Amino acid sequence: MKEWKHVFKLDPDREISDEDLDRLCMSGTDAVIVGGSSGVTYDNTVDLLSRIRKYTVPVALEISVAEAVVPAFDLYFIPVVLNTSQGEWITGRHQQAVKEFNHMTPWEEIASQGYVVLNPDSAVGKLTGAQTDLDAKDVAAYAQMAEHLFRMPIFYVEYSGMFGDMNLVRKARNQLTETRLFYGGGIDCLEKAEQAAEAAHTIVVGNVIYENLERALETVRVKEGQH
Amino acid sequence: MKEWKHVFKLDPDREISDEDLDRLCMSGTDAVIVGGSSGVTYDNTVDLLSRIRKYTVPVALEISVAEAVVPAFDLYFIPVVLNTSQGEWITGRHQQAVKEFNHMTPWEEIASQGYVVLNPDSAVGKLTGAQTDLDAKDVAAYAQMAEHLFRMPIFYVEYSGMFGDMNLVRKARNQLTETRLFYGGGIDCLEKAEQAAEAAHTIVVGNVIYENLERALETVRVKEGQH
Repeated sequence: MKEWKHVFKLDPDREISDEDLDRLCMSGTDAVIVGGSSGVTYDNTVDLLSRIRKYTVPVALEISVAEAVVPAFDLYFIPVVLNTSQGEWITGRHQQAVKEFNHMTPWEEIASQGYVVLNPDSAVGKLTGAQTDLDAKDVAAYAQMAEHLFRMPIFYVEYSGMFGDMNLVRKARNQLTETRLFYGGGIDCLEKAEQAAEAAHTIVVGNVIYENLERALETVRVKEGQH
Repeated sequence: MKEWKHVFKLDPDREISDEDLDRLCMSGTDAVIVGGSSGVTYDNTVDLLSRIRKYTVPVALEISVAEAVVPAFDLYFIPVVLNTSQGEWITGRHQQAVKEFNHMTPWEEIASQGYVVLNPDSAVGKLTGAQTDLDAKDVAAYAQMAEHLFRMPIFYVEYSGMFGDMNLVRKARNQLTETRLFYGGGIDCLEKAEQAAEAAHTIVVGNVIYENLERALETVRVKEGQH
């Protein structure tokens, strides 16, 4: 995960053909993350995992609902929304899920993600009541908390559906030494992927997969420039 | 901190004589924590620190308000309330404070404390809107989150003002391998101190200092039984 520069995020609630999935998994991306904000079920998650599992690309599940936790992923991500006043998105739902697993939680395969959600009009922004009116210093403070207060492996700047302020992203990344900054939102062509890859440690390419596969595949070229 | 078995907690907003403070600091306790729920100011915190500093006992500040952060403590604790729906007590106020310090936060001297507040009638319970209707499994789940999701050095079970359920405390401690369980609440004699010390890693003795100093001093004897 420390080496990931580019990942694709696939939504179990959206359709993708075998041919398109083949091209994504063979694209040279560092990993595939499975996750979505709505409509995620055990069945559609199992289905998508089994199709991705034909390939060697690492595959992680970003857990959004406890009911859709499927075994046999390489890694599990637990999102923690840092910029919300609604405690259920920071610790509340997590505690319910951990209690339900009843000491069976495989913590060694789990990594927490400290999210800052910055698009108020996005599904995730509305759902979690994210306080999105933040400047670069605000986000830099959250980055410090993710690394030092909560020792999270991932700090995730999520603009979900819009391309964000790369200056803000870069300033947040510059706070971090151990924690990795994941950037997601609005990466729909190679040029934006390059801008985001210059500012973040890891870029997440999602929606464009379902809108324009060729453009999505192009973004993997950001890996060419890496050391 | 990993070795602490017994600590005294002193409230900057409460009076203590030089003689009583001398006896506490020379008692053999492992550390003194300075902190309180209300009335904590820069001035009364500086004053109390300067008086404790005449002794060699380690002294930590539990930060409740950003305005009362005084330099020269050995260690700083940042409380994070895990069992509340009010995000300001989990991440909100913390972010404001970190932003204010503007990259000057001395993270190497800071340890986060994952609090579970279990007395709804206590000042801290009311202030933070803690959801206190929890059983042992609930608290055990929070303990797992403190250790694995947030990698906190301290998990703090706080019954503030009442002596708690030691069975619940023991079950929570048994979840932990790296994180230390601090127990606080209602320890007002050696017998309760012994019960709490058997269930927790570290016991915190507070209010009884101001009510019955002799009884407070007695509780240090829990250290005699340690390996």
